[in-house]
Amino acid sequence: MIDANAWITPYLTDVFSTLDDSDPVVKAAAYSLFAGGKRMRPALMHASASMLSGYGVTPEDIAPYAACLEMIHTYSLIHDDLPAMDNDDLRRGRPTCHKVFGEDIAILAGDMLLNTAHENLIMLAMKSESHARASYNISHLSGIAGMIGGQSIDIDSEGKKISLDKLYELQHKKTGALIKAAVTAPFYLSSADDEVLDYLRDYSEHLGIAFQIKDDILDVEADESTLGKTTGKDERDDKPTFVTLLGLEGARAKLVEEENACNTALDYFSSKNMDIILLKELSEFNLKRDH
Amino acid sequence: MIDANAWITPYLTDVFSTLDDSDPVVKAAAYSLFAGGKRMRPALMHASASMLSGYGVTPEDIAPYAACLEMIHTYSLIHDDLPAMDNDDLRRGRPTCHKVFGEDIAILAGDMLLNTAHENLIMLAMKSESHARASYNISHLSGIAGMIGGQSIDIDSEGKKISLDKLYELQHKKTGALIKAAVTAPFYLSSADDEVLDYLRDYSEHLGIAFQIKDDILDVEADESTLGKTTGKDERDDKPTFVTLLGLEGARAKLVEEENACNTALDYFSSKNMDIILLKELSEFNLKRDH
Repeated sequence: MIDANAWITPYLTDVFSTLDDSDPVVKAAAYSLFAGGKRMRPALMHASASMLSGYGVTPEDIAPYAACLEMIHTYSLIHDDLPAMDNDDLRRGRPTCHKVFGEDIAILAGDMLLNTAHENLIMLAMKSESHARASYNISHLSGIAGMIGGQSIDIDSEGKKISLDKLYELQHKKTGALIKAAVTAPFYLSSADDEVLDYLRDYSEHLGIAFQIKDDILDVEADESTLGKTTGKDERDDKPTFVTLLGLEGARAKLVEEENACNTALDYFSSKNMDIILLKELSEFNLKRDH
Repeated sequence: MIDANAWITPYLTDVFSTLDDSDPVVKAAAYSLFAGGKRMRPALMHASASMLSGYGVTPEDIAPYAACLEMIHTYSLIHDDLPAMDNDDLRRGRPTCHKVFGEDIAILAGDMLLNTAHENLIMLAMKSESHARASYNISHLSGIAGMIGGQSIDIDSEGKKISLDKLYELQHKKTGALIKAAVTAPFYLSSADDEVLDYLRDYSEHLGIAFQIKDDILDVEADESTLGKTTGKDERDDKPTFVTLLGLEGARAKLVEEENACNTALDYFSSKNMDIILLKELSEFNLKRDH
């Protein structure tokens, strides 16, 4: 696996180099953005671009988009951790943004990351129609049709009994949308045909659910210091999860099922002589990760 | 003066027509967005586009941008009104978004409006390089270099004695940036030369300050039911304002000074045979408004 953090940090540093680092909002945004984390979405974007390298797109082309996507992911974590939302004190192994900088600055730091990501997406969109489509795809999946829409269903579902179908819809949007954005972004800069896009979506949808099932399992099973965030919070918040709906064994079985569906999509890419090694590593990593 | 609310409502309605109106975040965003308000920024954009109509841009061209700008302005009000920020119960004559929908939904409704505005700005950017520059200008002035940067200084200044220069910097960004975005956006779709842009910036910077001085005066003088928001809150929050720094009479004198500077910029446009009637109406409206 590539070191996705090392890969995108220069791009993020570049964005922040023009900003006043004594500004409390800039400081708070940088605190959360440069805390590391798995950088799962950039790693997926890199792996997808590598696989499509025979179709005129390279990881280098896609790196600025990975930086934007990570800014969007980080803003969503900052807002999600606020007392009015999930009320979390720990993230990526450190106190959450609002714990260090106060709620007002944390709200603005989230807004700033979302806005800065989009300033960069618009600049990228100026390059060509393909770039504009890549930018739009990320923005659209971050919004009410994607991640924000999922967060809305999530809040609306607290303390309620929801169906497995509804949980799938929730997580396809809340967790799945940015994973789909990561996996499909390189397609828009490539010359691959639409069938490839269909299978990239397929892979990313199953991976998004697999990723969430693993998160739900870790929330019950993991050690807090390894996980880097509070555990047991789904139960505390009375949130429907794959574990509460299916039980621990049921969730584990479903995880394997989703991973197998990822592999079916990967088989398609193999049949087209694409190198699936990096994408396969990432879905396998999800099975084994402890944080 | 045109009815700016009637002008942009179809565009905003169009954006919302594709969304699920049973979603609590969509409902909350619509609640705040369709509450009316002065629609000052759209009115300015319309007036600027009308003045530049001899240079290949029409109000119709710019209307979708006005809708985006109003979404961005509205998100900033929703987040600004939160308990962790200005903690306001009243806005545009109605209970604030978080009072009706809860803080969690209000945070997401703000995020959603910011994201949706940018989805549309990216779509507009696909039309041409000029459109992309117009989109970028709005996004950039909304971010840390503009409005969010001003909000950061604002929070950092609470309870502090700041200089008049610092207050100017704060308000050039916090209030001035979106007013500048409104006045300059039509330029990017026009064939006017860069000198026109300089004077549009000049006009908008002085108007932005004049607008804020008027707001500061109204916070002290106005009747709450007319103003549609809580009065006396600057003093309550120990915020530096033009009234606290210059006194009421000093602020009134500064307001007239800024309005005169607006007129100097308008004289330039007149000398180029542009029709300044709508822009002049708006700066004069600011002098007289009671909310």
